[in-house]
Amino acid sequence: MMNKTTQLYEGKAKKVFLTDDSDLVIQEFKDDATAFNNKKKGSIADKGVVNNAISCKLFTLLEENGIRTHLVEKLSEREMLCRYLDIIKVEVVVRNIAAGSLVKRYGFAEGTLLEQPIVELYLKNDDLDDPLMNDAHAVALGVATYEEIAVLKNRAEAINLVLRRFFADRKLKLVDFKLEFGRNKGTILLGDEISPDTCRLWDLDTNEKLDKDRFRFDLGGVEDAYSEVQRRVLDLD
Amino acid sequence: MMNKTTQLYEGKAKKVFLTDDSDLVIQEFKDDATAFNNKKKGSIADKGVVNNAISCKLFTLLEENGIRTHLVEKLSEREMLCRYLDIIKVEVVVRNIAAGSLVKRYGFAEGTLLEQPIVELYLKNDDLDDPLMNDAHAVALGVATYEEIAVLKNRAEAINLVLRRFFADRKLKLVDFKLEFGRNKGTILLGDEISPDTCRLWDLDTNEKLDKDRFRFDLGGVEDAYSEVQRRVLDLD
Ligand SMILES: Nc1ncnc2c1ncn2[C@@H]1O[C@H](COP(=O)(O)OP(=O)(O)O)[C@@H](O)[C@H]1O
Ligand SMILES: Nc1ncnc2c1ncn2[C@@H]1O[C@H](COP(=O)(O)OP(=O)(O)O)[C@@H](O)[C@H]1O
Ligand SMILES: [Mg+2]
Ligand SMILES: [Mg+2]
Repeated sequence: MMNKTTQLYEGKAKKVFLTDDSDLVIQEFKDDATAFNNKKKGSIADKGVVNNAISCKLFTLLEENGIRTHLVEKLSEREMLCRYLDIIKVEVVVRNIAAGSLVKRYGFAEGTLLEQPIVELYLKNDDLDDPLMNDAHAVALGVATYEEIAVLKNRAEAINLVLRRFFADRKLKLVDFKLEFGRNKGTILLGDEISPDTCRLWDLDTNEKLDKDRFRFDLGGVEDAYSEVQRRVLDLD
Repeated sequence: MMNKTTQLYEGKAKKVFLTDDSDLVIQEFKDDATAFNNKKKGSIADKGVVNNAISCKLFTLLEENGIRTHLVEKLSEREMLCRYLDIIKVEVVVRNIAAGSLVKRYGFAEGTLLEQPIVELYLKNDDLDDPLMNDAHAVALGVATYEEIAVLKNRAEAINLVLRRFFADRKLKLVDFKLEFGRNKGTILLGDEISPDTCRLWDLDTNEKLDKDRFRFDLGGVEDAYSEVQRRVLDLD
């Protein structure tokens, strides 16, 4: 049995607790939902349960494909036991299809299939609104070294290949997604979560949005979308 | 004698004219000044004359240092004869010291000396407010190939080394600057201008701003700053 000791962090979607083992933390998934860097707030029933289940499944899939993650095991409905990471303050976004800020910032038509996936780096800093940055910014800001950035990008592309195929088999298009990585004993591991909170997922046939955009843009059927993704990711196995 | 034929383009600071020779254009420097993507407009007396003189001098300096530019010759007070370029829709910014958007976007303290120069790419598109982008965005947008982007960055760093030393000899800190490049008969040449409109220049001893920031932020003494830069660049030769 692993005991939560002190709470290390309460974020927008999860709490992170220390445990008796200094190498291990517990992520507890909440139902709280935020968008546009906290300007929109709400809650999605059972989101914590769904996202924990989906994340544990996807992290296991990645491990099976040789990609190291912080996942140790699923502890309970809302709890994931993880290796403690010194989180790298970079959000790595991978895009396969134009949506969101690619449309707004650069004028891509939503839905445009990109010839090559685009990997983006954002500074993980809520006060600054998570600004886009390039490799040189990240190094100058001291958040990562050039070597680490090369690892992050490379890892993100490898993860994209695994996830894209997995979702396609479940009739879902992986439009884009956000990753966080961290340092553990000299190795970089994938951390945080992968869920409809952090991915854009569209139905393969209808392009129906099955992700947090339903909450962001008040499209309705938020809970149904999350459980539909859970069903396809877990039940169709 | 080179004759202007049709006007190809009227921009915010210059007009560009075709000539009888299809390989050559004339840039005519105006006194118009704009900032914050046209939201602030005004005029700076004799800016066109000053910026043409400074640009011609700096492009000549770069040519002497083996960096190819579009400059053919200075034609008159406000006119520069240039090779016609198929302009690459990328603004390449080089930063040596934190100022401007580096302060605003990432929280650097203004004046921080960067350990390594930072090269940034912006999409040259006024409608989109010239957004920051990375290499993959530029390629996906079709504005340049990966090979071209590598050339742009490399050229920008080489230009920075030449200019930084030149300005330092004239008691000016080259804080940051913006470059535009274009294609001419299979070669990439430096185009546009290099002037106090496109550089941040601070007095080496007092850090007094001697560039367009005086206009942007209503610091006064705009014309004096521009002529002081002209004096140091041209008279102290
Ligand atoms: N294995 C880990 N060790 C330590 N911290 C982690 C680990 N995995 C994720 N985190 C961090 O815990 C927080 C998770 O909570 P979340 O609600 O997503 O926070 P945020 O509001 O910052 O997005 C994030 O800041 C994330 O970087
Ligand atoms: N050698 C060249 N051939 C063709 N166009 C050029 C050349 N050098 C610069 N230009 C373009 O001419 C325009 C110069 O005018 P400017 O007032 O600076 O325009 P802008 O408002 O786009 O900044 C710019 O769009 C620049 O890209
Ligand atoms: Mg988070
Ligand atoms: Mg211009």
